[in-house]
Amino acid sequence: MSGWLAIAGLGPGDAALVTPEVTAALAQATDVIGYIPYVARVPRRAGLVLHASDNRVELDRAALALDLAAQGRRVVVVSSGDPGVFAMAAAVFEALEAGPPDRRDLDIRVLPGITAILAASARAGAPLGHDFCAINLSDNLKPWALIEKRLRLAAEADFAMAFYNPRSKARPEGFARALAVLRESCGADRPILFARAVATPEEDLRIVSLGQARPEMADMRTMVILGSSQTRLIPRTGRPILYTPRFAVEGA
Amino acid sequence: MSGWLAIAGLGPGDAALVTPEVTAALAQATDVIGYIPYVARVPRRAGLVLHASDNRVELDRAALALDLAAQGRRVVVVSSGDPGVFAMAAAVFEALEAGPPDRRDLDIRVLPGITAILAASARAGAPLGHDFCAINLSDNLKPWALIEKRLRLAAEADFAMAFYNPRSKARPEGFARALAVLRESCGADRPILFARAVATPEEDLRIVSLGQARPEMADMRTMVILGSSQTRLIPRTGRPILYTPRFAVEGA
Repeated sequence: MSGWLAIAGLGPGDAALVTPEVTAALAQATDVIGYIPYVARVPRRAGLVLHASDNRVELDRAALALDLAAQGRRVVVVSSGDPGVFAMAAAVFEALEAGPPDRRDLDIRVLPGITAILAASARAGAPLGHDFCAINLSDNLKPWALIEKRLRLAAEADFAMAFYNPRSKARPEGFARALAVLRESCGADRPILFARAVATPEEDLRIVSLGQARPEMADMRTMVILGSSQTRLIPRTGRPILYTPRFAVEGA
Repeated sequence: MSGWLAIAGLGPGDAALVTPEVTAALAQATDVIGYIPYVARVPRRAGLVLHASDNRVELDRAALALDLAAQGRRVVVVSSGDPGVFAMAAAVFEALEAGPPDRRDLDIRVLPGITAILAASARAGAPLGHDFCAINLSDNLKPWALIEKRLRLAAEADFAMAFYNPRSKARPEGFARALAVLRESCGADRPILFARAVATPEEDLRIVSLGQARPEMADMRTMVILGSSQTRLIPRTGRPILYTPRFAVEGA
């Protein structure tokens, strides 16, 4: 029996957001590899070996996955959300490229999942209904100067902006700097969504203006979406609906 | 029994990519509304009324959905991919905002789906593994000058770029202009993915350089993803893997 490797997205948290494709891959797997809280979401069964590891060891995890698949095991690497968006798929391909060339012809598939920004967007309305960008604010991964440059250009392009990892434990001051750049570029009135623990029992959504936004409104489980100049609020009982119309006007 | 409205994403095509949340909403619905080929993907059953309509009547569809939910029906508006990304959710909220204020307190939910760019990205590797943007190239929705401005700024920000509706039947010359702008901004060597009919039996993926890219490589069922300056190809038997590493360097 020949081995394979699937890099699968578990979605943001709710089992009702896991695709049947991912469920089927988990049912056929011999080994599941991932960050501890994601592996904890995989149903246990006899014969399934779970390899849970701490954060920041993505390349070790990727190397183990490739080793096991090369040995003929059926391996699923699990990510939260979608594995292709700031998650394990890129890490596995980094390891594949750096490793022995004979590994390249392994049966490797990426199984998409509901990524956190799209789950957060759905809960709030449709803030990403027009052109948008997604930026990882973790400066473990890139220098601050590059983050700031991207924020300013995204504001000039009038994208709605979705932010992953807004406030890392290691460098929480980065998000305060990002908010300051955005206020300067987009003004204080622009709506911003803080969506914490979307699709879990602890879900908490909050929409404020950029002027009211504070770094403490985000933690490591929060997704942040800033509207474009066209993004609107529909007042209703309870939290308003946040959405961006499909049409854009020039000079917007 | 009080009515509700769910705006649901059917994913790119394969039933294995429809979330259980969407399947459950369809099982409880009295009415399904949408563009003809998307409604055709919904399982028929006794008592379920299907309202299929042609393209470009999004606002009529949205108004019908709100009317039926206000009458106490259980309504699902279906979109391909994710309803919040260039799809029906924004159209429903446009209709809601323009319509009678008492409709605003209806039970309206957006149910996320696997959007086409993430399905295409998964099939190719992980080209959206770092910061990226999504741009709708249809100039039905915005003036060409705004599209061109966004392309140039996105290139300067060094985003990977995902393009929806690259080549509309009405104005196919737009995509040729977009490719010319991108070649000027990103150079001829940048890899670009043409992913046609992803997650359907007609799926066809092609990776070329921007210099080799031709407008005819895209049609209305094609998603296009252009790499950032960091996007790489891993040669292997068959189609190479296209991915963007998680780390970025300054000046990239």
